[in-house]
Amino acid sequence: MLNLDMILKVTWLVTTVGFAVLLSDYLILRQQQCTEDTTERPPKPPELDHVQQGSSVWCYGDNNTNRMCKFSNLCFSPQYQQFVFFHGEQTVTHGIHNRFQPALVDLSSVPDHNTQYFQYVDLPASALTDFKKVKIYPGTSLIFNRFNPDNLMHVFHDDLLPIYSTLRQITASDLGPFNLNSRLVIMEGWRPGEFVDLYQMFSTEDPIFKQDLLDSGELACFTNAYVGLSKATTWYQYGFKVPQGPKENITVTGKEIRQFTDFVYVRLGIENISLTETKYIVLFSRRLNRLIVNEVDVTIALAREFDMRVITLSMESHTVPQQIAVIRKASMLVGMHGSFLTLAMFLPPGAVVVELFPYAVNPEHYAPYRTLASLPGMELTYAAWRNTEQQNTITYPYNPWDLGGLAHLDTAEQDAILRSTEVPRHLCCRNPEWLFRIYQDTVVDIPSFLKTVNTAMKDAEANKQGTCGTSTCEEHYEKIYPGQIVDVTCQTVRLSDGHVGLQLSWQPPWNLQYLNAKDTGYEVWIQEQGKASYMPWILPFTSHVFSEGIEAGHDYNVWVRCIVNGTVVGPFADAVQCVLKVHEPQK
Amino acid sequence: MLNLDMILKVTWLVTTVGFAVLLSDYLILRQQQCTEDTTERPPKPPELDHVQQGSSVWCYGDNNTNRMCKFSNLCFSPQYQQFVFFHGEQTVTHGIHNRFQPALVDLSSVPDHNTQYFQYVDLPASALTDFKKVKIYPGTSLIFNRFNPDNLMHVFHDDLLPIYSTLRQITASDLGPFNLNSRLVIMEGWRPGEFVDLYQMFSTEDPIFKQDLLDSGELACFTNAYVGLSKATTWYQYGFKVPQGPKENITVTGKEIRQFTDFVYVRLGIENISLTETKYIVLFSRRLNRLIVNEVDVTIALAREFDMRVITLSMESHTVPQQIAVIRKASMLVGMHGSFLTLAMFLPPGAVVVELFPYAVNPEHYAPYRTLASLPGMELTYAAWRNTEQQNTITYPYNPWDLGGLAHLDTAEQDAILRSTEVPRHLCCRNPEWLFRIYQDTVVDIPSFLKTVNTAMKDAEANKQGTCGTSTCEEHYEKIYPGQIVDVTCQTVRLSDGHVGLQLSWQPPWNLQYLNAKDTGYEVWIQEQGKASYMPWILPFTSHVFSEGIEAGHDYNVWVRCIVNGTVVGPFADAVQCVLKVHEPQK
Repeated sequence: MLNLDMILKVTWLVTTVGFAVLLSDYLILRQQQCTEDTTERPPKPPELDHVQQGSSVWCYGDNNTNRMCKFSNLCFSPQYQQFVFFHGEQTVTHGIHNRFQPALVDLSSVPDHNTQYFQYVDLPASALTDFKKVKIYPGTSLIFNRFNPDNLMHVFHDDLLPIYSTLRQITASDLGPFNLNSRLVIMEGWRPGEFVDLYQMFSTEDPIFKQDLLDSGELACFTNAYVGLSKATTWYQYGFKVPQGPKENITVTGKEIRQFTDFVYVRLGIENISLTETKYIVLFSRRLNRLIVNEVDVTIALAREFDMRVITLSMESHTVPQQIAVIRKASMLVGMHGSFLTLAMFLPPGAVVVELFPYAVNPEHYAPYRTLASLPGMELTYAAWRNTEQQNTITYPYNPWDLGGLAHLDTAEQDAILRSTEVPRHLCCRNPEWLFRIYQDTVVDIPSFLKTVNTAMKDAEANKQGTCGTSTCEEHYEKIYPGQIVDVTCQTVRLSDGHVGLQLSWQPPWNLQYLNAKDTGYEVWIQEQGKASYMPWILPFTSHVFSEGIEAGHDYNVWVRCIVNGTVVGPFADAVQCVLKVHEPQK
Repeated sequence: MLNLDMILKVTWLVTTVGFAVLLSDYLILRQQQCTEDTTERPPKPPELDHVQQGSSVWCYGDNNTNRMCKFSNLCFSPQYQQFVFFHGEQTVTHGIHNRFQPALVDLSSVPDHNTQYFQYVDLPASALTDFKKVKIYPGTSLIFNRFNPDNLMHVFHDDLLPIYSTLRQITASDLGPFNLNSRLVIMEGWRPGEFVDLYQMFSTEDPIFKQDLLDSGELACFTNAYVGLSKATTWYQYGFKVPQGPKENITVTGKEIRQFTDFVYVRLGIENISLTETKYIVLFSRRLNRLIVNEVDVTIALAREFDMRVITLSMESHTVPQQIAVIRKASMLVGMHGSFLTLAMFLPPGAVVVELFPYAVNPEHYAPYRTLASLPGMELTYAAWRNTEQQNTITYPYNPWDLGGLAHLDTAEQDAILRSTEVPRHLCCRNPEWLFRIYQDTVVDIPSFLKTVNTAMKDAEANKQGTCGTSTCEEHYEKIYPGQIVDVTCQTVRLSDGHVGLQLSWQPPWNLQYLNAKDTGYEVWIQEQGKASYMPWILPFTSHVFSEGIEAGHDYNVWVRCIVNGTVVGPFADAVQCVLKVHEPQK
């Protein structure tokens, strides 16, 4: 996953772009008209007229990393391999300040990576006549870069989940989560790759690749284009600026991941595949490197220990949809650290993930799948097993450097790496010690491995029986707030000690009955008019007589809000003004 | 304009809502089914199923004033007169932090006004079954408040322009500026009002008013709803926090205003109305208050002085579309300070606006129309005339207070106001001195008035002949940037003094030919590798030998960018690394 080669690989590719409107013939025809001027003019295509009126852009956000931009009539020039913005009569530009510092938006969900910067070139609309061929792509297009389309973890984390999230934001459907008629425009320039089918889930249209645009040679104009992908669903950062780890301020929840996986089941046609009802364990088998040398022993040990069938999956023997179909019913997923473990998102709630790490690799430092499994609402139990026995590891110092070889290093560096018992934290992407260690094969020590798995199984059982069932867990990440309290009344009352009191009463928020509230409280702020300070109170009931700091003849502002289960704080109702009467002393 | 009465006036109103899907019958039917269980079930309406899966919300921005929110399945309860958000299986909430501090978004384009706060109440999706009748509004809805729909200035500035701008942002059309099939949902609760026709321009659907939703009694669910209006097109603030004036950071341009007015001409069907080709002046006549007492004299004086016809318009005698049709061809617009002057946006480029102010009212302090006319690209000439002669004013101290009467004040306050020669700056909305002065009638002093108008006419003529024609003016507010320079090369050269130099060459940005550049320069940054500082250079050509600070055998990073007309600064091209060879000394 972390051996990222950001050199853009461009491969020749033919894709039929049947839905685009070809206007080149018309343009040539019109030029003839002008010189001949004999026959009637053909009708002018209204879409081209629309482009001639200019491009527009609306952006929200402050910088390339948090911006979201929508364009009308954004064009791409294959000749210059750049996006073009035509300034015309109908042009509007909103929110594009600092568009060169360093870029307007990121084309991928990976933030502020300099291979992912989106820029466009300005032209006056009059320059459109110099483009001999113009192809219009009507409807809505989502223009983005895949970050590393050869790696399944990157495909799901950087692309598929963000595409799903972005399409929900930018399109609308009266029936489903988003409109399947929008178009993906994939601009990083790599070949479609082995996972291209997964990108086809999102649209009834085929995706368009940069190479398609280059091959056509025509100016491509997208009528309604969004650029870049939402970063709301990512949970991991790859160590470009600080060592890799969970990203700060993760917003995605297990609930949202499972909305995505439900969508995948439907679109891949695997929602109704019925498998055996008996419980089983999935063991993922790597075939090329980072092997479990004694995989058969591990399989037998798991089957015996838990009395379950063990199903072995591998990239070489199963398609991704086949793997997903098996994983979605599994009780446990076991595998060496690697991109396949991304598919843990398809495990059912309550399942267990066991990730294996080669010798000298600290599981705490490489945590994309641990983080995924731990997202609130995922309801998975995660455990890491680590090879701690040097005699159980098989090293490959003579591999190519990108598969962990050390031959390119001087002897002292090689020796230091070979003697090290743990890879220190490092930045992405070419740390030789990390590559050396992660491409080791491992003989798994069965007793210590089974101990790890057994503990995880018990943890999973405890989690299921814990207080945090499906609905209560949800409260931790999706707060349902009480509404405003209503019908506040205040009146002056005489207390037994002769002083006056302020009696406040109100009605609970109308949605309280639906809130499954174990504990309901009310926060009351009382402020004497004209003063800056106020007295705050917390009460368990909806009526109370306040006397502390209350004086007859004074006026008070009162705010009340409802608090559920101690932490879910509703909004204040509008301030109420209470005028405290001066009571005559009783005779 | 500034006498804002924010008490929401609710008037009974019947509007047919033919396009909504009525589901109540189905729900009742289903309940019967459950008890009887004899016949086949009716098909479940898929839209209701969609609502049962939950609401979702995506917001951009930090607070209620700069947020933009999109909802799916946002509902409105007529019973509680509140919006409702159903938390269900498909619910997503993005960007809704601080939703109670003080609100999620503003419902109108007027920022952070406490009558304009949008909130919703949370409910679990299971609560949907308690709503006996549910009406689904499919497609896209724009939900907002009008701020003051009885006043033409507020209608255009707060509502119509922002609606136009918002619809361009949130909808897309392959042909026009936006999709006319979206629906306006107007929630401030006032009656439709005399300007309701203007709101009908934006959609082929009739607008829905809050009263319609209340009358129906059903839970109204909007499948795809945007809440609030863009603030990008407003230019004036009404003095709620500081005295009124142009708002800070105005982003709207005359170009965008004229995109809106072009849209209005088409939608009101007045684009092809042909009027007399001869030049004319429009005089706006107020009939109820703030009169020009000697209006006939003013009319005759204008006609004589400029040898033009003077057309008198008034709200009482002409509809707004009729007024617009006349104004769009006028050479000059003259009128007392008042909301009608908003229609100055429909004047043709080059026209003159003359605004008259009653005695003791400083034109500098009440500048919505001055600001409008002065927006870059409006190309209007604005002049204010002010009555400076107390004997020419007619006061109404016995009017009701909201028409400037003083009877509710004590004698000292009344005297102070009567003696004052200028209303001091004040906050909105009930300053009695302001109301007293702005509801005066005025006898216009013809010589001083003609002097003002003549100066304005000369200014307009000078503006037309100035260096700032239509296209060059545009540069001031819509910058067309040069792209990146290309093909940077560097090589080591030997200088005549024996030192080495760094020869840099590059090609101009490919869009430079289209940029109408009077002056092209290049900024070059040269940084010795490993050092933090760099040397910046500005050059008028695309090749140069640098020697200062250059040493043989050192490596340099080089950045180059293009600067057009001294101020339009393009992006840097990617850094180029230059390795300076060590030359053998010549023998």
